[in-house]
Amino acid sequence: MKIQIPDQRLTEKINHKIDLKTKPLGALGQLEELALKIALILQTDSPKLNAPHIFVFAADHGIANAGVSAYPQEVTYQMVYNFLGGGAAINVFTKQNRINLQVVDAGVAHDFQENDQLIHQKVAMGTQRFDQQAAMSESQLIQCLDLGTKVVGQAAEKGCNIIGFGEMGIGNTSSASMLMSYICQIPIADCVGRGTGVSDEQFLNKIKVLQQAKDRIGDLADPRKILLECGGFEIAQMVGAMMEAASKGIIIMVDGFIATSAFLAASALDENIKHYALFAHQSDEAGHGRMLEFLDAKPILKMNLRLGEGTGCALAYPIVENAVAFLNEMASFESAGVSNKD
Amino acid sequence: MKIQIPDQRLTEKINHKIDLKTKPLGALGQLEELALKIALILQTDSPKLNAPHIFVFAADHGIANAGVSAYPQEVTYQMVYNFLGGGAAINVFTKQNRINLQVVDAGVAHDFQENDQLIHQKVAMGTQRFDQQAAMSESQLIQCLDLGTKVVGQAAEKGCNIIGFGEMGIGNTSSASMLMSYICQIPIADCVGRGTGVSDEQFLNKIKVLQQAKDRIGDLADPRKILLECGGFEIAQMVGAMMEAASKGIIIMVDGFIATSAFLAASALDENIKHYALFAHQSDEAGHGRMLEFLDAKPILKMNLRLGEGTGCALAYPIVENAVAFLNEMASFESAGVSNKD
Repeated sequence: MKIQIPDQRLTEKINHKIDLKTKPLGALGQLEELALKIALILQTDSPKLNAPHIFVFAADHGIANAGVSAYPQEVTYQMVYNFLGGGAAINVFTKQNRINLQVVDAGVAHDFQENDQLIHQKVAMGTQRFDQQAAMSESQLIQCLDLGTKVVGQAAEKGCNIIGFGEMGIGNTSSASMLMSYICQIPIADCVGRGTGVSDEQFLNKIKVLQQAKDRIGDLADPRKILLECGGFEIAQMVGAMMEAASKGIIIMVDGFIATSAFLAASALDENIKHYALFAHQSDEAGHGRMLEFLDAKPILKMNLRLGEGTGCALAYPIVENAVAFLNEMASFESAGVSNKD
Repeated sequence: MKIQIPDQRLTEKINHKIDLKTKPLGALGQLEELALKIALILQTDSPKLNAPHIFVFAADHGIANAGVSAYPQEVTYQMVYNFLGGGAAINVFTKQNRINLQVVDAGVAHDFQENDQLIHQKVAMGTQRFDQQAAMSESQLIQCLDLGTKVVGQAAEKGCNIIGFGEMGIGNTSSASMLMSYICQIPIADCVGRGTGVSDEQFLNKIKVLQQAKDRIGDLADPRKILLECGGFEIAQMVGAMMEAASKGIIIMVDGFIATSAFLAASALDENIKHYALFAHQSDEAGHGRMLEFLDAKPILKMNLRLGEGTGCALAYPIVENAVAFLNEMASFESAGVSNKD
């Protein structure tokens, strides 16, 4: 097994440090849980966050041609240009919160010029329609997992110890719903939401298409097979990247519905990954709440976001910084001369 | 009436600007609501947050001598020294999030030396025990409301257009529960929580003491009378400060249970104040959720915090900054060349 559980021997020391801060026991709530988790991942009771990165993995999906999305497929590459031009929500939030942003072309159906801000690791011009055939070949899946690993290695070389995972890909809520249905063993109809905002008619069609895909594929338990049959290139690259991050002891921030579906697959491959993950937010996309429940994960924010791009990670990042700051900087009862409870 | 509702004529223009951003309609959820509210308060579709302040109002409470708190009363002044020394949670979070912090001695039972970081406006050395007599006199109440006004005036002179309200005062959850019970018309037992962490026995005693106080006071509807009978100097100064902020068109950030009780009183005095308020978080203190429901208020964070000091405001502030940033900086579908939904 590649991912090691962080050494838990520091737990008592970290909790002791938290409990002696000038505040009632537990009064910083979820912030205390975040501080403990981060301190354990980084194996120090004085953690520092270094060179935070958000990767936006982008790819196209054959299934988008089955009428499952509110937007045309060209929006994927147009949004990549928007990321490169600095105009998307994730640009605004990463700039505001001082996070490095990198966009990964994992398989967008468009030829991009060389661009320093874009990591070119396109596997193909989008996946196949998974209602008709497997989304990708086995060699494409292996390539995806490997390429995901690569981007994390590059960030780690810059000293990065926290990575947020976001995505862009018209049609990718359909892949995420399929992954959820297979891995959480929940009927597909309960895993489907309105994505970027499909109409009632499109919504019913989306359920129908995904049910047909499940009928074609049949039962599956192996997460690799699930990814191959109905995943996406951006999702599979995220799986590889998340697993590499955990095995390098890097903090993982999981964004919304699609990034969480990648995390579901990663945790089906190696459950130890959960020790490295912070969940940025609970999305407004139906199904995300149940995914988080399945993972026993407590999101930081719950603000009815449903944009993807890693925006939840970027918005939750300042909270994570504050959790680290209180652990490092707050006075203890003793140092501040404050009377503690009897 | 002193507080004017912000001119609503900009609503359509602001919503139009939000809807043309490169994201599905409504995909930024609560962030969009925050952006709209802030833009209306500041009366511009390109708002800027200036010189953010958090005021921590501190005072002592006679009722603390009735065994309603887990901590001894001296912790109030000791924590004021901790604020001045930079070691408290609110110091860490305001520093981390670049917010000006000011501590107000509204009535701490301790003589402080002159200190630039402390605003000296002590009304008395703590309130009276309100289970036995009125917490303060009418002239003290008037003084509080006036002094609250003053600190906001000083911040406004520095160009401040957003103020977070926090507090410190051993025993002040008891006052807050009383205000909640009177203003929301909820039985006192349902308004009482464990504050800084009382034991089961102390908890039952706290309910008993507050029920006795309600029996002594009888029915009350006038918010001024309620404040006078069972409020606190920090709470009453916050009421004055919040009302002044709203009447000056300054954004109010309301912290947890005690700050929200001040806001309840302020909104009972002038309901228009609600148009100026953002609710930083839902506290873990029992009762805060119902207070927020009564106000029809949607908190930004829900992280089981129960520390006070304005910590919720400080933690939510980066989210508010991000809401303003997306409104100002995100590209539109047209400017980014992205296809919109049909």
